[in-house]
Amino acid sequence: MGFARQLVTEDKFLGGQLVLMQPRDGYRAGVDPVFLAASVAAHDGESVLDLGCGAGAAGLCLATRVPGIRLVGVERQADYADLARKNSFDNDIDMDVVEADISDLPSEVKEESYDHVIMNPPYHLRERSTTSDDAGRAAALFEDTPLATWIDVGTRRLKQRGYMTIIQKAERLPEILRGFDDRMGSILVKPLLPREGRAAVLILVQARKGGRGEFRLASPLILHDGAEHVGDSESYRREVSAILRDGAALPLW
Amino acid sequence: MGFARQLVTEDKFLGGQLVLMQPRDGYRAGVDPVFLAASVAAHDGESVLDLGCGAGAAGLCLATRVPGIRLVGVERQADYADLARKNSFDNDIDMDVVEADISDLPSEVKEESYDHVIMNPPYHLRERSTTSDDAGRAAALFEDTPLATWIDVGTRRLKQRGYMTIIQKAERLPEILRGFDDRMGSILVKPLLPREGRAAVLILVQARKGGRGEFRLASPLILHDGAEHVGDSESYRREVSAILRDGAALPLW
Repeated sequence: MGFARQLVTEDKFLGGQLVLMQPRDGYRAGVDPVFLAASVAAHDGESVLDLGCGAGAAGLCLATRVPGIRLVGVERQADYADLARKNSFDNDIDMDVVEADISDLPSEVKEESYDHVIMNPPYHLRERSTTSDDAGRAAALFEDTPLATWIDVGTRRLKQRGYMTIIQKAERLPEILRGFDDRMGSILVKPLLPREGRAAVLILVQARKGGRGEFRLASPLILHDGAEHVGDSESYRREVSAILRDGAALPLW
Repeated sequence: MGFARQLVTEDKFLGGQLVLMQPRDGYRAGVDPVFLAASVAAHDGESVLDLGCGAGAAGLCLATRVPGIRLVGVERQADYADLARKNSFDNDIDMDVVEADISDLPSEVKEESYDHVIMNPPYHLRERSTTSDDAGRAAALFEDTPLATWIDVGTRRLKQRGYMTIIQKAERLPEILRGFDDRMGSILVKPLLPREGRAAVLILVQARKGGRGEFRLASPLILHDGAEHVGDSESYRREVSAILRDGAALPLW
């Protein structure tokens, strides 16, 4: 099983601190799992469950910044789970990768509870999207499992006082907020704006199991300088480059 | 009935285009109804229902910018309804002020549907707040009627394709979003940040009856320049001064 060698690329993350094999034509992690990892205030010795870990980008980025975490990833596609294991090995970062559907977790995952649950669920509802030629890419991009299920499964797996962190398209904020029930509180939303004056494209949402804080809408992270995309340069703002290239943390508050 | 003359103040809004009598010690409109009014893209000839209009600030600000609207305000406290009528008269702006609880609207309001419904509901849940010595102020600040009821009543009173606009504390966004049902769509949230890098304190939320657009999280409006409040100067940013002092519109998108 797994992708044939010519079907994967090697991509540098965090300025080359991490090199990840990814399918050439399948779902490819971009900046989103890097932002997700940067926003998790994990500490040495804590456990982190990455639901829908794909090739492992988010969890491995987080473990690069916080080396002492215990990392578990769940991925339902065997090819991607294999890549995550390979990426874990090649980067010398421990990660238990479990091949499973998040709505049917095996007992080894269900018997444990975690300090952090992180997730980057598929962005598009399948019914609204055209079908993809690549089944793996389609499964990573298009949703079969409702966001409410992701959030419920994550909530169950969290320790009391543990944190859930989600990155998702901004347009799905109402659905995410509806997904939290009384078990979760201290919800915080961090908008990610492509440029000043633009609407949010992505949001980071963090909530705490048993948290009692009020909902907070944090100041946005603005990704690019200037009003327009100019030429080939990425023109990330300095604090964004620090996250993407240097592995800096992204404080949500 | 009504407030004794020595118990009210005359306050200038929109750089003095509007002068409103307000109770000296009761609930006093600040900048919030001005932002609410500025964000409503009403046109000449359209009808606007202001739910919980207090002394009339939001509706009268809107009618100052868009003189040809038909304006109806509902206010359950007789003293405030009287002030709204007086403010309407003194500023020579037509406004029908109906004394009623929004959850028990009289037929004259229920028989009509409106192009716009605007509201600035009380910010605090009564159970969480200390009691106030001033019953009128308490009723304007502390909530008896759930936000879900405000939104449901507003939704019923809207014409198909009409817009509801709400200003509220940012911490209550989840409750507002839960308040919208299938009748409403094209929801947009505009965060109001006191300063760059700070969390939103207020939000403007707009939704359209029968709208089919995705949820949008717009770029924030930042109220003040600088990182700190300095001396007595208000230091509103230029575009904010234009709204508050010159009566400019506040485009939400």
